[in-house]
This record gives sequence, structure tokens and C-alpha cells, in this order.
Amino acid sequence: MKSLLLLALVLIVAVPASAQTTQDESRPAASNVRNAQYPRVHPDGRVTFRYNAPNAERVQLHPGGPGLAAEDLDMVRGENGVWTVTTPPAAPGLHYYWFLVDGAIVNDPGSETYYGWNRQTSGVEVPDPAGDFYEIRDVPHGEVRERWYFASTTGQWRRAYVYVPAEYDANPDKRYPVLYLQHGAGEDERGWAKQGRMNFIMDNLIAEGRAPPMLVVMEQGYAMVPAESGNGTVNAFPRLVIDDLIPMIDATYRTLPDREHRAMAGLSMGGGQTMTTTMANLDKFAWIGAFSGALGQGFDVQTSYDGALADAASFNERIRLLYFSAGTNESPYYENARNITRALNEHGIPAVFFESPGTAHDWQTWRRSLHDFVPRLFGE
Amino acid sequence: MKSLLLLALVLIVAVPASAQTTQDESRPAASNVRNAQYPRVHPDGRVTFRYNAPNAERVQLHPGGPGLAAEDLDMVRGENGVWTVTTPPAAPGLHYYWFLVDGAIVNDPGSETYYGWNRQTSGVEVPDPAGDFYEIRDVPHGEVRERWYFASTTGQWRRAYVYVPAEYDANPDKRYPVLYLQHGAGEDERGWAKQGRMNFIMDNLIAEGRAPPMLVVMEQGYAMVPAESGNGTVNAFPRLVIDDLIPMIDATYRTLPDREHRAMAGLSMGGGQTMTTTMANLDKFAWIGAFSGALGQGFDVQTSYDGALADAASFNERIRLLYFSAGTNESPYYENARNITRALNEHGIPAVFFESPGTAHDWQTWRRSLHDFVPRLFGE
Repeated sequence: MKSLLLLALVLIVAVPASAQTTQDESRPAASNVRNAQYPRVHPDGRVTFRYNAPNAERVQLHPGGPGLAAEDLDMVRGENGVWTVTTPPAAPGLHYYWFLVDGAIVNDPGSETYYGWNRQTSGVEVPDPAGDFYEIRDVPHGEVRERWYFASTTGQWRRAYVYVPAEYDANPDKRYPVLYLQHGAGEDERGWAKQGRMNFIMDNLIAEGRAPPMLVVMEQGYAMVPAESGNGTVNAFPRLVIDDLIPMIDATYRTLPDREHRAMAGLSMGGGQTMTTTMANLDKFAWIGAFSGALGQGFDVQTSYDGALADAASFNERIRLLYFSAGTNESPYYENARNITRALNEHGIPAVFFESPGTAHDWQTWRRSLHDFVPRLFGE
Repeated sequence: MKSLLLLALVLIVAVPASAQTTQDESRPAASNVRNAQYPRVHPDGRVTFRYNAPNAERVQLHPGGPGLAAEDLDMVRGENGVWTVTTPPAAPGLHYYWFLVDGAIVNDPGSETYYGWNRQTSGVEVPDPAGDFYEIRDVPHGEVRERWYFASTTGQWRRAYVYVPAEYDANPDKRYPVLYLQHGAGEDERGWAKQGRMNFIMDNLIAEGRAPPMLVVMEQGYAMVPAESGNGTVNAFPRLVIDDLIPMIDATYRTLPDREHRAMAGLSMGGGQTMTTTMANLDKFAWIGAFSGALGQGFDVQTSYDGALADAASFNERIRLLYFSAGTNESPYYENARNITRALNEHGIPAVFFESPGTAHDWQTWRRSLHDFVPRLFGE
């Protein structure tokens, strides 16, 4: 009966309250799993990591982006084989990371995991002094719904995440505009809700009256199909959006299914996909955003996107918002987005550029971008 | 522009189709992350694992339960520092696992992660020849909805997962019965949807007409509050269910809010919590299930649960179903559940016992239990 007894004990486990605090005012990161004391975040944004590897010869902290640290940091072996390191003050927001244990990629058992870098990685949440906009508040909360559907483009069952505003079920005759919102390379349909906290951002904006209630649809930006050459596969995601995702959403939810009430945005790779998808389908979208967009080289107002932007007057008649953003610390995304915006403005297209101060190619840039972008949508 | 170019390349990445198969008929596990080739499952249920750790001196596969392997298996170092091992034929279902790299706990970068063992662990899905009941089929699909709410018991915002049947939004005047469904020790509210695939099990049963459309509510079975002694914390989950969760669900969704239309079930620790919660609140539940329940020692029909079962006639007037289950390979849960059922039957309470052949204390036992339990609910 030993294991039964053990499980019974779990029911009445007692945790000393003193274990929750330390003298140095650091706190367990909000991204930690239940009861994990490390990583710990200090008031100035430094983060202390710990990993138990008694037999390792070298353990390093590998930041998944420059916001946490500029390079791999060597950890120091302490008594009992516990390795530790404290970073310099990190940028605010969620940062992917992992340990390199004698060179091998190892997740932190103390961290929640986040799908990024094409696998589940650790992540650490560093508070933003101005970060209340993505925290849960005492306001009506929408739902993030898992929606499975069959996509003819890939011939597979796929999962979309659909944010539905708090009022949706109480207004059975009302229809809503839709924002299609895409993750970056190596991530998936879970990214915006989990890493991005998009649901809290939306809840807060809607509760403040700064954005109209809307649906937000998140899908996986990988839709591999056999290449026409017969050799390998290509990503048919833009086609899937048009042929499968939008028709399914409009058939399943109470949407306003016209272009004036349909937006698309995405981050990094998803920003590039947003441009590719919308520029080829200007009859289907009126609001467009690329956050830290992977937009390729050689942008030209006349020839890029098959000339979709060449006739500014015609473009302006249809597109209500063309929006670019980037963190000030993410070269070359920053310069690229700013330069494209300038070129469009000189060309007569009133594209908008938003910059996130002090952040790099990471989720805090994209949370802030979403928070700035959404209030601009679906107005008169 | 190097990183922009790299991201642009991701958009058109080509994967040779030949990389998807090998000559030995093994296949990447369904639980792998996108494009990961290992772990691979063989037709007979053997699983081959691989981990890249050139500098490690010893790498072992640690099974998170006996269904995958009976003990730690040493992995063999190959060329380039890649370690491999193949298990004996494993039991069907999802098995937690991790690697021990020179003794340190390490997740498999090729695996999706699953919250179990109080942290995110790797998991491998071994197909069940009779496993179609938990696979996605071409039937109407319900949604799993993330619902945030404030719980007065703990003074915190908490997340419930709510399965809503496919027909829910199309029947705005219809009300539904509710099953409260709990995970086991070290897991959380995500377990039943992710590890358990409860949504596909429900979709399939409802589509077959074997179960009425119902809501299924999953919360986290940890609700720590300060102990009355002033020393440490205790788990107030049963109180949270009664005071916070049920009122919120009945206020938010179109439920049938009476005891005849309310069930509770759980696995392992959640089975124990189900018994504790329902036996103290027989006026609120009519259908009760404990799957591999952590039910404690010394069960006695007269005295256990403060005598809730002592008067069989009175108990039978109120409780429509009392259900226990276990896998045949999970001693002592199996014997315990069977013996309790027998004692209850001899006492005049028609408790039901279901056994899952060949499975242990793992998710396949609980998927099968749910699949057997749900059709028994909410009948006349």
C-alpha cells in the first residue's frame, strides 16, 4: 500500500510559508511550474538560474534571444552539484532559454515549457514596470477555444485557437469582426495565447472600451504540401488561410464575414506570411499588421508583392490600415520595418510604424505591438 | 540582413519525403514535436529513443511509469555522441519519460511536453490496436475552452478547462448536464485534454449516440490555503469545487444545475478528491467515479467518509452511480478498487467495477475508464 499512502499524503501536503521568500527580495518567476523556487527574478530584472547536475563538467545558461542575456553565461558549481548563475538586468517580457550541460540542450525542470525554436523550451517571465496591460485584471474574460477542423489544403485535421470576447455567448444575435493572428518561426498556434497572453491584452482593451469586441483566430503557420516539382514539400499556409481557415471560421462563429471586418497580423515569420497572404487577397482583408516582420530584402513599392502596392490611390481605397512595428533593439528588423514604412509613406500610402522601446526580437515587442495595433482596428 | 534571410528560408523549407520513413517500419511517435524523427514506435510497441550528448558518460531512459519499461534502461553511445535505446514492447497509451544524463533529469527535445510529476516531462504515445475511441474522427467536434475566474477560496485567479459539446452554440435554449473531471497528483487542469484526449473521447461517444451531450469541467486539484494551525498550507480543493467552481460554471454556461445532472470523477489523486468531495456533498452529485483512485487504506462501509455509505438504502436513493476502475497491472490500486467495490456490493450498494486489461497506473487506463464511464451518466 506504499504508493497509495504516498498519494494520500499529497492530498494534505504542507509547504512552509517561509520557503516562498528569500532575504534578497527576488521572487520565483511567474513562468515557473507550481512550487518551483528557481529561476528567481530580482527587482532590477536580474534573473538567477539554478540547475542540479552533480556530475556535469560544464553548465551554461543559453538565452533564447538577446533580451535575457547577450551570450551564453557560464554557471558556477556549488555544493551538492547545484549550478547557478545570475544574469545582468534583463529586458522585460518572456524569454526563451535552456541550459547547455556539457554541450547538450537541457530544459529547466523549474520552468513551464513554451513551444519555440521548433521544440518545447524553458521560458522566464521578467516583469515589465508598465506591463499591467497583459496581466489578468478584474474585468470580464473571454475564452480561448480549441477548435479542430479538417483542412482540404493539407488533407489533415488541424487545430485553431479562437479567442472569443466575454460578451459573445450573451449576445446570440450579434456578429463580430475577426483578427487572424500568427506566431513566428519555430512556434505554433499556442504561442499568442501562452507566450503572448493575447487573451488578457484583448480582455483589458475591450473592458477599457479601447477596442471593439472581436474574435481572434490563431493557427499554425506550417501547412506543408508536396511541391509541384515532386521533390520535397512547400508551405501552403497562405492558401490554407483563404481556402480552409476563413471559410471554417465564418461558418462556425458569428462573424462579420466581409473584408471591412477582417484583419490579419503576425510576428516575424507570421508578419511575412501576413503580407504574402493579404497582398495577394486585397479583396478579403482591410486591416494588416506585421510585427517584427520577416519581410525579405529589396522592398520596392512598385514591384514587391506583385505590385499590390504600386497604385497608392487604389490601395488606399481598400486597405484601412497597414501597420509595421519592431523593437528598438532588434536590428535589422527595426530598420527594415521603419524603412518600408517610410517608402510607403513617400509613395502615398499612410502606413503606420510603431516601435517598442528597449525590446528585441521577443514576445514583449509583440505584446506591445498587439496592444497598440488592436485599438486601431474596425473603426469607421 | 542575415536573420531576415534565415527566416525567409523557413517559409519555403523543403523536407525530403524520404526522411519520413525508415526501412524498419518504425514511425515517429504521435507525441513528437513537428518534424522530430525520434522517439520512434515499432509495430510491436517497442520504442526507440535517441539523445544527443557527446560529452556525457552515462545516459539512461527513465520511464515515468511501468507501462513503458520496468526500470531505467541504459542507452548506448553511438558515433557522434548520439545515445540510443529500444525498449521491450510497451503497453499502449501515453507514457511519461525523461533521460538521466549523468544523473541529471533531462527532457527529450524531440517530444512534446506534458505536465506530470510536478513539471513538464516528455511523453511518448504508443498506439493501442483498439485505440480508435480516442483518435480524432470525422464527427462534429466540441471545443475545449480556457475559462479564467476568481476563486474566493484561494483568493486567486484560476483557470478551468471546459469541454463544450459540438451542438452547444447551435442550441441557445438548451441546458446541459456537467461532469467535473480531475487529473492526478503532479498534473494539472491541462491533463485530461492533452494527455487524456478527453475531447476526442467525448466527441466520438456523443456522435455515436452512446452519451448525451454534456459539459466537462477540468480544474487544478491544488488549492492551497493557510492551515488553521497557522503553520503551512492545506489543500482546500473540495471546498473550492463547492463554493467557487460549481457556482461559476452554473452562472457562466447553460447547465442543468441540479444534482441529477452533475457528475464528478477523477483519476488517482483526483479519484480520492472525487470521493472526498462527493461523499461530503451527496445533495450536489448523483454520479461518481474514481479511476485508479487514491482511496487510502482501511476502507469500511460503516465509517469511511464520515459514514456517508453506512445507510445503503438512503445512499442508493440519492446516488445513481458509484464507479471504480483500475488497470489490471497496477497493484495495489487494482485490488483496492476491486475490494472496495465488493464490500459495497455486499453492503447493498450497486457500485460498478471496470478493469482495463494490461494497463498500469497510466493514461491508457484513464482514457478507457472515461470511455466506459461516460455512457453510464445522466440516464433515466
